[in-house]
Amino acid sequence: MDFTSDNTCGAHPKILEAIVAANSGAVPSYGEDPFSIKAAEKLTAVFEHEAAIFLVATGTAANALALGALCPPWGAVFCQENAHVSEDECGAPEMFTAGAKIVGIRGFAGKIAAADLKATLASFPSGPVKQVQPAVLSLSQLTEAGTAYTCEEIAELSSIAHQAGLKVHMDGARFANALVSQNLSPAAMSWQAGIDVLSLGATKNGALACEAVIFFDPALAQAFGFQRKRAGHTISKGRFLGAQMCAYLDGGLWLDLAQIANGHAARLAAEFAKVPGVRLPWAACANEIFAIIPRALDETLKAAGARYYDWSLRDFPENKNPPVENEVFIRLVTSFETTAADIERFIGVVRK
Amino acid sequence: MDFTSDNTCGAHPKILEAIVAANSGAVPSYGEDPFSIKAAEKLTAVFEHEAAIFLVATGTAANALALGALCPPWGAVFCQENAHVSEDECGAPEMFTAGAKIVGIRGFAGKIAAADLKATLASFPSGPVKQVQPAVLSLSQLTEAGTAYTCEEIAELSSIAHQAGLKVHMDGARFANALVSQNLSPAAMSWQAGIDVLSLGATKNGALACEAVIFFDPALAQAFGFQRKRAGHTISKGRFLGAQMCAYLDGGLWLDLAQIANGHAARLAAEFAKVPGVRLPWAACANEIFAIIPRALDETLKAAGARYYDWSLRDFPENKNPPVENEVFIRLVTSFETTAADIERFIGVVRK
Amino acid sequence: MDFTSDNTCGAHPKILEAIVAANSGAVPSYGEDPFSIKAAEKLTAVFEHEAAIFLVATGTAANALALGALCPPWGAVFCQENAHVSEDECGAPEMFTAGAKIVGIRGFAGKIAAADLKATLASFPSGPVKQVQPAVLSLSQLTEAGTAYTCEEIAELSSIAHQAGLKVHMDGARFANALVSQNLSPAAMSWQAGIDVLSLGATKNGALACEAVIFFDPALAQAFGFQRKRAGHTISKGRFLGAQMCAYLDGGLWLDLAQIANGHAARLAAEFAKVPGVRLPWAACANEIFAIIPRALDETLKAAGARYYDWSLRDFPENKNPPVENEVFIRLVTSFETTAADIERFIGVVRK
Amino acid sequence: MDFTSDNTCGAHPKILEAIVAANSGAVPSYGEDPFSIKAAEKLTAVFEHEAAIFLVATGTAANALALGALCPPWGAVFCQENAHVSEDECGAPEMFTAGAKIVGIRGFAGKIAAADLKATLASFPSGPVKQVQPAVLSLSQLTEAGTAYTCEEIAELSSIAHQAGLKVHMDGARFANALVSQNLSPAAMSWQAGIDVLSLGATKNGALACEAVIFFDPALAQAFGFQRKRAGHTISKGRFLGAQMCAYLDGGLWLDLAQIANGHAARLAAEFAKVPGVRLPWAACANEIFAIIPRALDETLKAAGARYYDWSLRDFPENKNPPVENEVFIRLVTSFETTAADIERFIGVVRK
Repeated sequence: MDFTSDNTCGAHPKILEAIVAANSGAVPSYGEDPFSIKAAEKLTAVFEHEAAIFLVATGTAANALALGALCPPWGAVFCQENAHVSEDECGAPEMFTAGAKIVGIRGFAGKIAAADLKATLASFPSGPVKQVQPAVLSLSQLTEAGTAYTCEEIAELSSIAHQAGLKVHMDGARFANALVSQNLSPAAMSWQAGIDVLSLGATKNGALACEAVIFFDPALAQAFGFQRKRAGHTISKGRFLGAQMCAYLDGGLWLDLAQIANGHAARLAAEFAKVPGVRLPWAACANEIFAIIPRALDETLKAAGARYYDWSLRDFPENKNPPVENEVFIRLVTSFETTAADIERFIGVVRK
Repeated sequence: MDFTSDNTCGAHPKILEAIVAANSGAVPSYGEDPFSIKAAEKLTAVFEHEAAIFLVATGTAANALALGALCPPWGAVFCQENAHVSEDECGAPEMFTAGAKIVGIRGFAGKIAAADLKATLASFPSGPVKQVQPAVLSLSQLTEAGTAYTCEEIAELSSIAHQAGLKVHMDGARFANALVSQNLSPAAMSWQAGIDVLSLGATKNGALACEAVIFFDPALAQAFGFQRKRAGHTISKGRFLGAQMCAYLDGGLWLDLAQIANGHAARLAAEFAKVPGVRLPWAACANEIFAIIPRALDETLKAAGARYYDWSLRDFPENKNPPVENEVFIRLVTSFETTAADIERFIGVVRK
Repeated sequence: MDFTSDNTCGAHPKILEAIVAANSGAVPSYGEDPFSIKAAEKLTAVFEHEAAIFLVATGTAANALALGALCPPWGAVFCQENAHVSEDECGAPEMFTAGAKIVGIRGFAGKIAAADLKATLASFPSGPVKQVQPAVLSLSQLTEAGTAYTCEEIAELSSIAHQAGLKVHMDGARFANALVSQNLSPAAMSWQAGIDVLSLGATKNGALACEAVIFFDPALAQAFGFQRKRAGHTISKGRFLGAQMCAYLDGGLWLDLAQIANGHAARLAAEFAKVPGVRLPWAACANEIFAIIPRALDETLKAAGARYYDWSLRDFPENKNPPVENEVFIRLVTSFETTAADIERFIGVVRK
Repeated sequence: MDFTSDNTCGAHPKILEAIVAANSGAVPSYGEDPFSIKAAEKLTAVFEHEAAIFLVATGTAANALALGALCPPWGAVFCQENAHVSEDECGAPEMFTAGAKIVGIRGFAGKIAAADLKATLASFPSGPVKQVQPAVLSLSQLTEAGTAYTCEEIAELSSIAHQAGLKVHMDGARFANALVSQNLSPAAMSWQAGIDVLSLGATKNGALACEAVIFFDPALAQAFGFQRKRAGHTISKGRFLGAQMCAYLDGGLWLDLAQIANGHAARLAAEFAKVPGVRLPWAACANEIFAIIPRALDETLKAAGARYYDWSLRDFPENKNPPVENEVFIRLVTSFETTAADIERFIGVVRK
């Protein structure tokens, strides 16, 4: 009953098999190998768009490098105020941009509302020398609250950003979970909705350690090879990143695994809805559930061996119905390794 | 006949097996897992010294993060002028130190001579506000020329550096190859010789992607957790780094693999010595051979399918006997995957 | 009728005289001159505390360098969300800290409330590797809204910050205006209230270009000489900074000039209070007035030649009584050069 | 008899008068004032070329900001190995470029030889991801050894750099001294010889604190306003920089002052040539003299009150005739404030 995160599980066996299979023989290092090249081809096909594609080993690297490619040191990156790039990467975007400002925009359930983005950009014009210059909108999909933007929402936000001269980045650490939750195509949820650069996660959804930075406009990636290298993120035996990504995509494995994780979460959420005293502050749609539960239930669950995180009140400013005394705000995350047995055991405790 | 580098090969099967074995079950992420903890224990035992130990996926990260922990932005890192940290990491040490200066010291065959270090430090005193402040001596073992410092040499250089108030870092990307070439203990070649922080490579010698940063004085590592995280080098499924390092050390695998690579190189070097017109600008001692060969031989070898790099004249300033017309300066690297058949085939071409 | 800012005026004649008087003869460069040494002695006496003192030419430098001395790249600086260091220095604090995060705390009228600081720090604990580490509280005195903290408020906020392990910085660009508005001693409003480092402005209050960074704990300034030099802020003919600061303090000139500026603003504010349709969103106390006025009056004033800035709605989130249609939010700033005639002429237009 | 540097003197009276004259009335701050605009017009006229021009208060800022505008973090700046930007700015260029590498090229008497630049660039090609990318050639005029490049030399070096895709920067801290020593036009010694960006010094030659960064291709300066602001180098009362520069240029004051300084140095050098045991390691041409003198003479001079710096052996690697035992290597600098009496008194001591 480990629901702490989708990175406490291992890698999917097919990913491991691909790593083992890629092991024999000498191939060029530093990403020039056939596996990495193949991975780029597959991603191009899956996303139905030419792209400059780079593989790295961590999500923080995928985000921070992407932002470093889009934002000058005197620039501003706008994101929802609880976004991972703002709160959970120990300042990596600041480091990789050489000191840009990450500007949080308030928003309910992890999302930026179009009106709020407009208001923020209106009050933050390009030009005045005294302030950092608007450069990037970064959207998280899934959001930090486990919710997903619709394509229409992404398109509207991207359009506002583009009109103001910004580039649009998507932190897609849980891109697959968002995708299958809405039954969309990768193209629809990325470049067709205005995304310029996508950090596509694989690690949380079955890979060992693999993420892709996908530039739908390759011109934006002109210096990326140098930026990745000097950040220490050019893996020497790059074949192992390529092999992971190939296996991740092959036969739609990535979508199947996300479906499994999402399904478990839906089951949990449905059950929570029946329990008196349990509230979901916003609807769960993918593999993360945020819930406000009675402290007694929290204690019972933990005593029964359930593991999950208490969540920070800092991440909750817009909620009109916050936890009160004797309530606890928690987050549960499911993964492709979560078992039905885990779920049922957890539900069993809840029902008692 | 691929002798381009020791990172064009795959991972050793035992490393892969360990990865697969580590895959089952939920464990904490971000390096708090039992495998990473075990790896730290094993390294502590192998090095016979308490240490703060951090695993990362690339050698550039291991070096740049270590230097970032030791050198302020207004500091200077001294190294041999051809050192990897100076020439081959696209400015990673500059990025991770937020702009320190990497000062190259001339030296024959990749080594710094004690007299040259003394002279450099004498002309670069601590104090004057106009200049960056001496902070770190970084030694490469193996050096960029494939040579190895003796323990006495390391101890002498470390002592000079310590007396001037510097910390001493070792870039041990090929530490194992240096170790077995001299039949030394890990302790003797590191902290006993004055090394404060060691970047210990495993990738080039059999791992998939794994290096350790070892602080023999844990106090130097106080902020390292934050520094690693904000550089995007804290792997979320950290168990896979831990598993690699454990397998790498278990039963002395790392020493065995280095011995294999070194043995192949010794065989090659011995053969080269017999060929008229072939010169080794300095003696090979581990798994890298630098040679000056007739252009005709170079062409014959390449036509026969041998792969290796022509080396830069920039890396050759102190040689008294440089390549002349119709000569080529080359580097050959062997690895644990090099086969005796490869070597014999290569030698066969050379002999013709 | 120029009320745009207190940096559109020139320097006070006594400051200029001091510059001219300092001109003759050879003296050491880079701040080792007798004038800079004398300035440090005077500041030490005025503040009644030993201190490490450094002169620079701009307020942005004084703030950013101070924060750079107190906050590591993986640290967080907390300030009121409209603070100059957050909004108006084009990312200088981010640059000088090598990428720290400036975290804005909401607050009415430019001030941070103690409860809000406590709540922010409670939700931002030291320790978790994923987030930047709390390092500095930066208070602006005057605030960005022209208000002043009382000593009790400063002491309370400093105490909260110190208990959480933070250092406390004061952006004192208008320190003198705040001081005379409350009739306090420099010591009372700085180190006695818990300030660790003060950026003391002189430029807006009569100097040509001169600010001081005052470390009440000299140990915090150990690397400051290097930090200032590598930022290009060590003036070669440092005597001219020293001479400015000496003249600024001599005979209490700084207090006299601030009194003049404050007096003019008080006169303006009193008059505004009598005009129907004009509101002050918060009380003015020093030399800056923020007012909400009818658009018609705004047009009349500008037509009559009055100059001042419309202020950003971004800087107004906590106001319960924001400007509505046909209202304009403006800022007026007075200086030591403002004349009674200017004020009366302006008031004359307002009264019509 | 102070010959330590040309920044131990004060400002020229005409510069001070201009500052005083600029003091009255309200003008826009941050460089939008009429004085700064006038200064830019005058510089444009003097250099006979359109340009984007920015005034700052220190030479380190002028150099580091210029390099920051030309060189990405993953770039290399090439300069003579003793250049001020490499050795004497405490890492400012590294800070302002966010970590670029400053690559020193050996050369006699402070100059880079064309053949050495070609060889360096040949061994440092654009492209390889593992190394920083060639971006800028920075030439010092005067050089750090007090020598001056001819226009032909500058043009040849610039042409080599441009062919390799680099931009060319000139550190003109003593531009005026170099100019009058060769009786050249400002245009001839800058853009006509291939200089893209010039850091034009005024401080050492009579200003209080004023330097200009002159982009002969304004497109290179697109972000410079932001870069200057975030470095804290946008002076709020910018009129005082503008007024200094106007006075510096008016009536050719800058050339007259440089002529005075150079003349004094020529007199000194001519006298030194007559003294047995005194050698000039290279010919002096402007206002700096480097000499090797007997220790006994050094002691006599210092006893008589002469002040000058012993120079570092580090700055002397290419000299074939270095100081031997009982010899001292010294630097003497003259300025517009040096008097004939000083010179004659010094010579009197030498002759004894």
